[in-house]
Parts: sequence; C-alpha cells; structure tokens
Amino acid sequence: MNVAGMLDLLHDNIRGVIVCADERVNTLWEINDMTKKNAFYAQSGGVTAVINASACGVIETARTHKDKIGKIYAGRNGIIGALTEDLIDTSKDSARAIAALRHTPSGAFGSCRYKLKSLDDNRAEYERLIEVFSAHNIGYFFYNGGGDSADTCLKVSQISKSLGYPIQAIHIPKTVDNDLPITDNCPGFGSVAKYIAVSIREAAFDVASMAKTSTKIFVMEVMGRHAGWIAAAGGLAAENVGDAPQIILFPEVAFNERKFMARVKQVVDECGYCAIVVSEGVRYKNGTFLAESDARDVFGHSQLGGVAPMVAQMIQAKHGYKYHWAVADYLQRAARHIASKTDVEQAYAVGKAAVEMALKGKNAVMPAIKRISSKPYKWKISEARLTRVANVEKMMPRNYISKDGFHITPRCRHYLQPLIQGEDYPPFKNGLPQYVTLKNVAVKKKLDKPFKVK
Amino acid sequence: MNVAGMLDLLHDNIRGVIVCADERVNTLWEINDMTKKNAFYAQSGGVTAVINASACGVIETARTHKDKIGKIYAGRNGIIGALTEDLIDTSKDSARAIAALRHTPSGAFGSCRYKLKSLDDNRAEYERLIEVFSAHNIGYFFYNGGGDSADTCLKVSQISKSLGYPIQAIHIPKTVDNDLPITDNCPGFGSVAKYIAVSIREAAFDVASMAKTSTKIFVMEVMGRHAGWIAAAGGLAAENVGDAPQIILFPEVAFNERKFMARVKQVVDECGYCAIVVSEGVRYKNGTFLAESDARDVFGHSQLGGVAPMVAQMIQAKHGYKYHWAVADYLQRAARHIASKTDVEQAYAVGKAAVEMALKGKNAVMPAIKRISSKPYKWKISEARLTRVANVEKMMPRNYISKDGFHITPRCRHYLQPLIQGEDYPPFKNGLPQYVTLKNVAVKKKLDKPFKVK
Repeated sequence: MNVAGMLDLLHDNIRGVIVCADERVNTLWEINDMTKKNAFYAQSGGVTAVINASACGVIETARTHKDKIGKIYAGRNGIIGALTEDLIDTSKDSARAIAALRHTPSGAFGSCRYKLKSLDDNRAEYERLIEVFSAHNIGYFFYNGGGDSADTCLKVSQISKSLGYPIQAIHIPKTVDNDLPITDNCPGFGSVAKYIAVSIREAAFDVASMAKTSTKIFVMEVMGRHAGWIAAAGGLAAENVGDAPQIILFPEVAFNERKFMARVKQVVDECGYCAIVVSEGVRYKNGTFLAESDARDVFGHSQLGGVAPMVAQMIQAKHGYKYHWAVADYLQRAARHIASKTDVEQAYAVGKAAVEMALKGKNAVMPAIKRISSKPYKWKISEARLTRVANVEKMMPRNYISKDGFHITPRCRHYLQPLIQGEDYPPFKNGLPQYVTLKNVAVKKKLDKPFKVK
Repeated sequence: MNVAGMLDLLHDNIRGVIVCADERVNTLWEINDMTKKNAFYAQSGGVTAVINASACGVIETARTHKDKIGKIYAGRNGIIGALTEDLIDTSKDSARAIAALRHTPSGAFGSCRYKLKSLDDNRAEYERLIEVFSAHNIGYFFYNGGGDSADTCLKVSQISKSLGYPIQAIHIPKTVDNDLPITDNCPGFGSVAKYIAVSIREAAFDVASMAKTSTKIFVMEVMGRHAGWIAAAGGLAAENVGDAPQIILFPEVAFNERKFMARVKQVVDECGYCAIVVSEGVRYKNGTFLAESDARDVFGHSQLGGVAPMVAQMIQAKHGYKYHWAVADYLQRAARHIASKTDVEQAYAVGKAAVEMALKGKNAVMPAIKRISSKPYKWKISEARLTRVANVEKMMPRNYISKDGFHITPRCRHYLQPLIQGEDYPPFKNGLPQYVTLKNVAVKKKLDKPFKVK
C-alpha cells in the first residue's frame, strides 16, 4: 500500500468513528428526550377573546425551558384531540405565530363542549387519556377551561396516580361567566365586560339622539345564563346619575313586570329614553326563563331565542314606546379588538404560571388571580388546589345588586372596574385586525386503536 | 372753585366721554353683528359614529371665521328645533368640548326622523323656518343628513329666494346606507362597514373553534333595508379563499332557499362551519321580506324582527346544524370605538368644506367625496349641486355581487376596502371611551308664536 492508499484508509476509519460518535450522541439525545416529558395543552368549552393569550403564555414559557419540557402538543378540538390521539405539534409554528396568539380571539387549536363523565361512569375515557399521554411521553397536562374542565383536570391527576403513570395536571382558568371560585376573577370575563360596557354606552348615546321623535327604548341582551356578572358589567357605563344603562335585568332577580314597567316609564320621563341590559338568564319568580315563558303569547307574538326582542315588545305593548334591540351573542366574547388590557395580561399570566407550577412539580392545582388592591389595581398569581375549585360555582354576591334590583351597587363597581382597565389593540392591516391561524400540524399517531368519543 | 374742585370736574367730564365712547363702540359692534349672519346647523335622521365629527368640522371652521359668521346655532333634535325655535347656542361649549365631538358617536344636539313635506303640501313649515332664521339673523343653513335632508335643504334654498330672505343652504352628507349620489361614499358608512367586517371576522374565529362538537352556523344580521352596502362590507373580512363570511345575503338578490341551503351544506363540508351575513332587507322573489313572510310558521315558530334568527332556524330545520345568531342593530352605527379613520377624516372634512363653501357664497350645494385613486387611496372634496342629489338613491352596482349571488366581487372589494382603512380610537378613562355630552344651552326665543310640529 502506498502513502496515498494509507491516507485513504485512515480517512475512512476516521469517518467511521465520526459516524459512530454521531449515532451515540443521537441515542443519548433520545434517552434524554425520554426523561424529558412532553406537555399537552387543550382548550375547553366556550372560547373567549383571550384564551389564546393563555395558550401563548403556556407555549412561550415552555419553550424557554427546553431542558425540562420536550414538545408541547395541543389537543385538536380540545380533549377530544387527546381521546382520539389527534395531537397538534405546536413546535411547527414559529415564535412569531405563537406570539400572535396573544392578540387572537377564539381557540386556535379548536375547543369542544365535551364533559368527561365521572370516573365510575366512564373509566375507559380516563384510561384512554393516560394511554395517549403515555404513548407520546406526555407528563404535563394543561387544561384551559371553566368549572367542568377543572373537574376533569382533577380526575386526570387522580387516575394518573391509580394507574401508576405520572401526570402533572394543571388547570388554567378561563370563562366569560366569571364563576370560578378562589380566583378573584376569570380570564375572558374582563374583555366581555368591557365590550358590554362600551357597547351599551355607545348605543345609548345613539338612542338619546333619536328619542325625541323615534326610538325611546334600547334593549341589549347579554350572556350569562346562571349569573349576572356580564349584565352587571353593563352597569359600569353608568358612571353618573342618569347615565345609561338605566336598567339592568339580572338572572338573580325574579322578573317583576309591574315594577319593571313602572321603572321604565320613570326613566323615560326623566331621561327621555331608556337603555336596558338584559341577561339571557332572566326568569320569572317561578323559575321560568322569560325567553321560554308563555308570556310571549300574551302580545300575539312568539319568538325564538332572544329575550331582548321579547322585553322590548313587552314595553311597547305597555307604554307604546318605539324600541330597538340587539343580541350581541358571540360578538361579545370574540371582540378581541376591544379586549381589556388587564384581561389579556392576566390570561397570559395564568398560562405562564401554569408552566412554572408544573416545573416546580405541582399537581392538581390552578393558577388563580389574587387581588392585592383595587385602587390602584394590583394583582398577583396565587395557587389554588383543584379540590377546592372543581364543582364549585361562584355566584354574584347579592350586595352587588341595588336594592330595587335594577342596577349595580358601588361595591360591585369597585370590584368590576379594574377588570376592564386598559386597551390592548391587535395589529390592523387593510382596516382589519390581523388574527393568526396556526398550521396545526398533526403528530404522527403511535396507537393503532381508534377511540370512539361518545 | 379751587384747583381740587376743577380737577374733579375735569375727571367727571373725561369719564363721561369714555362711557359715551364705550356705548358708541358697542352700538357699532351690534350693527356689525347684524351684518354678520349667524349659522344654523342640524342633524337629521339616523345618527352615525361620525356625524358629530361633521358637526365638529362645521363649528371649528366657523369659529375661525368670526369676522364673517356670528353665532353657530344648532337645532335641538334636528329640524324640529328650528321649527319650534328651540335653538342651541354652541358658543356656550368650550373649544375642548367641541373638539371632543370628533370622537363622540351619535348626534350631540339630537336628531329627528322628520321629513318636511313638499312646498305645496306644507308651505307653512318652510315659511316658519324662514321666520325663525330671520328672527335669529341666520344666513347659513347647514343640514347634515341623507337623501331626505338633501331634498329639504334644496327646498329651503328655494323658498328663501321666493320669500326674499337670503339663506345659503348647504347639505352635509351623512348616511350609513351609503346611498347618496355623486359623492363616492357617505360619511358614516365606512365606520359601520369596518364594524361589520371586524365583527364577522371575530365571531367566525369563535365559531370555527367550536364547530367540531357545537355551533356550526353563525348568522349576523346587518342594517340596510334597501341596499346591500353594509352586508357587502362584511365580505371584506373574507380576504382569502375559505375565509368567513362564506355567505352574504343581499337585499338585491332574491332569496332562493334551495340554492342557499345547498351552499350552506357545501361550506360546512369544506370549512367545518359557515358564517353568514344577512341584510335585514333580504326578500323572496315576490318582494316579501323574509322577516315578514309566512315561512316563519313552517317551522312552528314566528318571531318579531330579526331575520338572523329566522335564517339560522331554517338552516337547523334543513340540516340540523347547531346555530348562533347576532343582531347588532344600533351597536353597528354607534361603534365609535372601532370607527374607520378614513370615515372620521371625511366626516370632518365635509363639515369643514360646508362652511368654506358658504363663505364663498355657495348655495344649494353639498360637499361630496371624490375618489382620486384607490391604491393608494386618495380623495378630495368636490362640490355637488343639490338638484342632482335630492331624491336620487345610489344602488349597489350588480357587478359588485358575485355571480352566485352569495358574495362580493373583486371590483366591490376594490371600492370598499379604502373606506375602512385606519383606526381612530377615542380616548379611554376607567376602561371606557370618553364621549362628550354638550351643555346644549338654549337660545332665548324671540318669537312669541309657538309652532306645532305635525
């Protein structure tokens, strides 16, 4: 063998060593990846203007801890994505796209209305979750939702123990209904509250202009089937005596037509017009929803949905006033363009805190918002145990509603006011807000068993 | 008389001369005030998010010409204020308050739905207007409204000639319906257009998140009884194939249930959900409004107002999809918080131009918006003769609607897009937009004859 031949041989040997070393490094990385657990994040129930800000908080924070958290998978259409092994690999979306979640309303990965039954009733579903989590090396379960999902989250944590597969289950609060306990308020609510207060103020300015010869009554229907938090938020617009809305109809106060009609007339006499916020959940004393009651036939009309048109027409039948009505429906919870800055910041913060709690080894907990002071408004994130959150509904205190039942009290205003503070406008292009749609690339399935969601 | 006594006498004489001179000056000022005519401004018909920006343009501009225009009076509740001699002295409001009109929705002086009859039918009304104008030395009549008020404005100019009392009548365009001729677009429309496009985009993001297990259909009802301009604006949100809204129902296109239902199904199959913008003015082929038709009983329900709930329910009856619907009503035309910057600027500009035209001696004209180019968008104010504006309704061109009748064409987008450009947020305090309420101090009546408005 000549020198050139020897050099070639040497070169081949060195290359062999390098390839071999590469493979060892890869193997080491894989072992490391296996010890480093992946995370699963899902959105649950009705979406909000800021639930994606929580997703953003989760993903951005997890991405800064690549030494401890592997991939962040999201459930396509919420928990259904976990049950059917339909996972989204969030690493396929750029930092820029993930950052844009902060200003994008709705649920970027899809949400679902799907409540897992109790462990006894449907143990198979919980076992399936663990099976999917195990197959994808998922050790962190972040569930972003309301009361039902807090309950699910708690159960996942419990079954993970009993099945011997460790899962840290952290609930991230979200609900426009503002009905979760422990936390001072719920991300999602502040932005709906702001939308409602802004909208009723604007519409009332309009009605006031027209009242002399035309519309005297404006009725705006808002969400909140069980609690009057959103309706109460409308009251924030009435900063001075006589300001709109002059009347709020709460689900907490039995509807008394005689009292209501007298109040409407009084307001029109005094202000020239009357702006009314009505909760979809308003009921008669016997518990019947107004929108479902037989009373609608009294006036020769019936209607589908919509307590606003019904109330408006009752007023016309009694007093003859011309009316207009609005039902904002999804517009109120999707209105990211007028989101509360406080709400956006808190939504992001609970997402971020959820990851930090997970990294601290926490399980079956929820980041809660703790109010330090109202004026100036200060808050921080505290930790709530899910056993104290699940299946507990926070109702609006009775002393938040005025004695006559038609408005909010100063105490209520004191509580609500900070939650709508600040604006956080999304970027606009061509006159329209620029919301992100993620790639939502599917993770390759590892189980060959399909699972039928009931 | 000693020296001191002489000095006192001299002092008294000098004081007498000064007082006398003062009185002469005052008299001269009054004469000057009589030669300098006052102006009258009134808002007419449905108000908008930016009609006060036009008022701001009128008042601020007139205030810079104090040598030529005396007081600026406003009609309380529009033209009714003129007929009943219920005038507002706008000079009682500070420069700051007047400036705040630019970002305040609604009609700050009150508007009215009151159409003056023809000269032959009710000459007394026109004569009364001249009587009031004459009593208050009013030489400029600025009337801010839609087609009807352009007609009234023209007639005021005509009768002023025949009665020999000179009035310069200038119409200032305003209407969310965008149906005035000559002007490229109408102040007020751009902001409604932006609100509708933003809202349907946001709500559709929400529905898309929920569609897997819940709501698949979202129907949003918009204003526009005669023309589909506002419905068309919803189409701006659909910038890419598949974007919401996927279907628009125009008043210009006869509602064909079979075709509509097929399209809804196709969209849900392709996109997973369907967002629909429906004009309140949608009709069947025979001309009946959907919201008034008997068809509502087919499904065992009837309703009051609201074509949105009706369309939503028709879809459910046919396809079984879960739906949500919204009726924005006044919210859409009052939503100053998301006003189009272009619209605000144009509303101010037509107010300003109206005063400038008056100062140039113009009569029976209207400042119109003339489009110079679309990309980049450039416009200027031109002058339109009221004889060409009054009683002419500008319909939406048929080639603005796609062949299948369910969407807008690129040509329509090209026209509409610049009108929603830019944001012009009002100032916020306590999380709420700060809108001004003027003092609206009444001018002392000079006529002892009350006038009964019919």
